[in-house]
Amino acid sequence: MADGTTTELSPLAESLMAGDKRSLARAITLIESDDPAGWALVREVFPKTGKARITGFTGPPGVGKSTLIGALTAELRKEDREVAVLSIDPSSPFTKGALLGDRIRLTEHFLDRGVFIRSMASRGALGGLSEAALQAVLAMDASGKDDVLIETVGVGQGEIDIVDHADTIVLALMPGSGDSIQALKAGVMEIPDIIVVNKADHPMTDTMVREVRSALSLSHQAGEWRVPILRTEAARGEGVAELAAKMAEHRAWIENEGTLAERRARNLRNEVVGLAAVRLRRRLEAVLEEDPEAARLVARVVDRELDPATAAIELLELTNEERGK
Amino acid sequence: MADGTTTELSPLAESLMAGDKRSLARAITLIESDDPAGWALVREVFPKTGKARITGFTGPPGVGKSTLIGALTAELRKEDREVAVLSIDPSSPFTKGALLGDRIRLTEHFLDRGVFIRSMASRGALGGLSEAALQAVLAMDASGKDDVLIETVGVGQGEIDIVDHADTIVLALMPGSGDSIQALKAGVMEIPDIIVVNKADHPMTDTMVREVRSALSLSHQAGEWRVPILRTEAARGEGVAELAAKMAEHRAWIENEGTLAERRARNLRNEVVGLAAVRLRRRLEAVLEEDPEAARLVARVVDRELDPATAAIELLELTNEERGK
Repeated sequence: MADGTTTELSPLAESLMAGDKRSLARAITLIESDDPAGWALVREVFPKTGKARITGFTGPPGVGKSTLIGALTAELRKEDREVAVLSIDPSSPFTKGALLGDRIRLTEHFLDRGVFIRSMASRGALGGLSEAALQAVLAMDASGKDDVLIETVGVGQGEIDIVDHADTIVLALMPGSGDSIQALKAGVMEIPDIIVVNKADHPMTDTMVREVRSALSLSHQAGEWRVPILRTEAARGEGVAELAAKMAEHRAWIENEGTLAERRARNLRNEVVGLAAVRLRRRLEAVLEEDPEAARLVARVVDRELDPATAAIELLELTNEERGK
Repeated sequence: MADGTTTELSPLAESLMAGDKRSLARAITLIESDDPAGWALVREVFPKTGKARITGFTGPPGVGKSTLIGALTAELRKEDREVAVLSIDPSSPFTKGALLGDRIRLTEHFLDRGVFIRSMASRGALGGLSEAALQAVLAMDASGKDDVLIETVGVGQGEIDIVDHADTIVLALMPGSGDSIQALKAGVMEIPDIIVVNKADHPMTDTMVREVRSALSLSHQAGEWRVPILRTEAARGEGVAELAAKMAEHRAWIENEGTLAERRARNLRNEVVGLAAVRLRRRLEAVLEEDPEAARLVARVVDRELDPATAAIELLELTNEERGK
């Protein structure tokens, strides 16, 4: 029933895999609205995925991740690579759909048939967003894009995140990103594959690069990939060719070392667990919304009659009973 | 079976509730090692909880949260309040057990019978840490502490976190916390109840306070609590009395507005759901570890034969079968 070997593909899957931009847009809308057709589509096209190079861009708001991605897209287009951008950073101009002023650099890509840009808004803490984003990345991959660039916020803790599903992770900082440096130093933030110090025209750039280097030196191990620290001024396109080159270099490195396959296997495993966990959590929330007995459980916790852990176990039992019906 | 009404209390529960420090330490060790006795104990003492004032301290590593908490503890002791500190910040000197140099300020409290300090190390992304931390906070509350202070890292996104279970949330920053300011401005970080700019002897403090104020002004609504911005130099105890006063003021405000009860009800509800979700996730991981069929599912995803969403559904089915056995 779900062995992935479908003999006949749906027309949408066909046109998506042929690279049709509107079909990709439609697919992502289905995914985003949690339409079963979206899930069915990803199931159909999944065997065609795995070819795209998936790069995650993370970093605090305001460092210019979207400008960087815009400039990088122009660079990748020079090599005739097809690019898809998925933005799930609520502070991003992509996400806000801002199309004016110095963002004109991004908008030029909207007219380019080789570029697909899509943003997704946050959908609360239930994990529904990463779930949809992961599926969207698969659809982008299946549509034949050479590069999928994911933009997300991420400072501080190494939470399970969409960026964990990338082959290469780029952390963007700018002079003044003190908190991120501290988090790197303290080992609280995971080490990315490439670090970009954007807005490198700032007088404090040298200091910043030095601080990043010293933070990295604490964790570097012999034989490991040496995380490059690049300087860019994305708004003027400076340093962006170097970034594209380093991305290619990292990709070659993980392929040679065999870690690409390893990373992808780990990512896919986490994706399966993550998707299952989201579903379970949604079921819990539904029971809590709909079952008066579950609501009573919580009321008793609030009245300090029943402790949260016991209530959790009883909630799980109720959830299983619901399924049994 | 689990209605929380036990007529006879265990000796450990008795001594814990009598305020015995060693019993509290033992209880938290049981909780941390996931010993069923720890869960049973929290179940016993839960009806006695709800009296402590629970304050969460968040902010990037390096801003001096632990020094601030140390100085605040001294301040609260002057009012003869009993204090428990729970640190779950991996970059904290509490967590590292550092007892030297300028941290002498903290260590003096270890000898004070009215102060209990405990740290918990991160236990991976499975959520096991927050689960244990929540139970530890309940044990501290039941032991008769007037204040429970929780120290945690948190920059950027509003993830579900231990800090969400506090009555009052204090965000600590320092001059140079540019990323946090950007995150506040962009609406990516949740607005805390009190903001402290620590290390206020820094020349950039005024600029920092101005930036924080402007970031807050974007989100302030009439009739809401007005988030105070305090300056402290915790290492010298400066500004700490003001922090204690603002904490008391916020507490009075949420009590008068009725939002304390609302917050606690919401927190407890989230705690029940969170605990249930952690258990479910653990069950999923166990099935994936132990059931060869589950391992085959993942292998098929890695081979791009089966898409992750379908694999997740099949994993859920396997998990239910496991339970049926």
